[in-house]
Amino acid sequence: MKDRYCIIMAGGIGSRFWPMSTSQLPKQFHDVLGTGKTLIQQTFDRLTKVCPVENILIVTNQDYFDLTKEQLPALKDEQILTEPARRNTAPCIAYAAYKIRKENPKASMVVAPADHLILQEADFIRTVEIALEQAQKGPLVTLGIKPSRPDTGYGYIQFEEDDNAATEVKTVKTFTEKPNLDLAKEFLSSGDFYWNSGIFIWTVDAIIKEIEESLPETAQLFEEGNDFYGTDKEQEYIQKIYPICTSISIDFGVMEKAQNVSVVLSDFGWSDLGTWGSLYTHLPHDDFGNAVVGKGVQLYDSESCIVRTPHEKTVVLQGLKDYIVVESNNVLLVCQKQEEQRIKEFVADLSKNKIIK
Amino acid sequence: MKDRYCIIMAGGIGSRFWPMSTSQLPKQFHDVLGTGKTLIQQTFDRLTKVCPVENILIVTNQDYFDLTKEQLPALKDEQILTEPARRNTAPCIAYAAYKIRKENPKASMVVAPADHLILQEADFIRTVEIALEQAQKGPLVTLGIKPSRPDTGYGYIQFEEDDNAATEVKTVKTFTEKPNLDLAKEFLSSGDFYWNSGIFIWTVDAIIKEIEESLPETAQLFEEGNDFYGTDKEQEYIQKIYPICTSISIDFGVMEKAQNVSVVLSDFGWSDLGTWGSLYTHLPHDDFGNAVVGKGVQLYDSESCIVRTPHEKTVVLQGLKDYIVVESNNVLLVCQKQEEQRIKEFVADLSKNKIIK
Repeated sequence: MKDRYCIIMAGGIGSRFWPMSTSQLPKQFHDVLGTGKTLIQQTFDRLTKVCPVENILIVTNQDYFDLTKEQLPALKDEQILTEPARRNTAPCIAYAAYKIRKENPKASMVVAPADHLILQEADFIRTVEIALEQAQKGPLVTLGIKPSRPDTGYGYIQFEEDDNAATEVKTVKTFTEKPNLDLAKEFLSSGDFYWNSGIFIWTVDAIIKEIEESLPETAQLFEEGNDFYGTDKEQEYIQKIYPICTSISIDFGVMEKAQNVSVVLSDFGWSDLGTWGSLYTHLPHDDFGNAVVGKGVQLYDSESCIVRTPHEKTVVLQGLKDYIVVESNNVLLVCQKQEEQRIKEFVADLSKNKIIK
Repeated sequence: MKDRYCIIMAGGIGSRFWPMSTSQLPKQFHDVLGTGKTLIQQTFDRLTKVCPVENILIVTNQDYFDLTKEQLPALKDEQILTEPARRNTAPCIAYAAYKIRKENPKASMVVAPADHLILQEADFIRTVEIALEQAQKGPLVTLGIKPSRPDTGYGYIQFEEDDNAATEVKTVKTFTEKPNLDLAKEFLSSGDFYWNSGIFIWTVDAIIKEIEESLPETAQLFEEGNDFYGTDKEQEYIQKIYPICTSISIDFGVMEKAQNVSVVLSDFGWSDLGTWGSLYTHLPHDDFGNAVVGKGVQLYDSESCIVRTPHEKTVVLQGLKDYIVVESNNVLLVCQKQEEQRIKEFVADLSKNKIIK
């Protein structure tokens, strides 16, 4: 167990979850599901069953250091890696990988976003164990999720059909970015496409080799910091080099180019909780299909709405069908569910009109 | 001028304007139209053009004494008559009439609700002058408003057709409570029905005679207080007798029974602002017919809505047509305009469910 490390990526701002999620308090730090625990706390708790607590690292924007400490008091300061700038997932993972390799060259890493939902924890842990075992053989490993609908918001992983139908471990053939609906439907019916969960498992050795191969400049920057990791100079060094890293996702920058990638086919009640609509499907519904988080809410003639308001707030909604109603940070959003992809546009307009900064 | 008195009735709770209007802070104390003045302030300012400031009396619930003083600092304490209980308009008017008669037996009174909208002030004042002149001849006088639509929320006044079409002063034939739509349409096309504005003009002598006639018990209670009005015993006396007064409106209790009632036909841009819908028609509209009071509101794909939110609040509304969206006192209401008469039901349910007290 001591060679296992978990990396929780917690630097995003969850802009599609506005107004609950803001750059001041992004989604991962909210109790999105109303369970009493924030998403990062749920992710942390889950990963304590995979590796020792002291081997769990959070990578997040430096603005969220205090928030992270507050929500995860079990962590020591040095377990929170702070990014001085937003550079997508590849630099974030590279930083963690190089730092861990210095501490433990035999390490394996589980990389997980802070803000995903996983309902079947035991299945998740079993899947991660299989992936860790596979990673010891050399490949980068990703968890593929059995698709339940032709979702156009997810990336897809195509795997090689092989003789061994009994094992969940497959060789990856292609990664596909978010498809259109027709393509997504084809993927679904073909049976050899799974959703890309964005959860990765590998040895530090394997991922660093692939970063060197696909992102040599990034590799060099982090390689040159080797003397500083774990010392009081680490922070200063990261401050200097992080902003000049290429901003690129690990999927696009590394995974899609790597030759040796495995996928573990899985089905553990996963959602990236990427939008209000995806959250809606995971909340309990009343008899009219409304999902309500908020104690003071009364609905009349309303169906299939998602409502999330502060508990101390009194809310009366009448005559709404298929709407998102969210209040957070003294901001109210009422929006048709089918228009939720426009939330980023609304926020940009508010900013342009100087209503919010 | 010194024989003229104005009575502003300010004891209502404006329950159809929930959640802006609550028993803690009813409608008349709000800047409903977003003009920078509350309704009672607008009413007070208007009436200073009818009678001396020291002859303006406010009758309100004792709970609103401080609010009234705060919003109308020009008033002396003794100009605010406080009701220890809600007893509708007849006891309120009786109290004012008996008190004024003691001070000035030759007095005339203009009685006006605190929470009405009057857009054409000069026309209003001209109409009141005509009514005051008529009242000197003995009758009770009411202001009738030329109806612009078959509104089922107003009472109607039918007047005698007479030979003198040139004068606005007519003899009242009947008062009709809120009619159904078919009847309201007939009233409108007949041409001899006007809306009952609830604004009355009379001499104290005339109204007291009619109260004695129609509500003898109420008359006796206020008659017996004659020694106390204007003394330090007034408040104590009112505390004692007010709760035992019959709770009845001046329309039903007196006007409908009185033999000698005149109506001044008028048209000064009046609304009782009784509901969100009636407010909607008096607010400026954007190109899509939305009436918005609130600085931080952005609308998308929305039409014919009325939106009233605190200025410091950011609000994004998408895909709403013909809705009321109001936030006040940390309460949010979203409701179809056509369902606004159910607001009282919503508030009763909240109370029953112990969401509000």
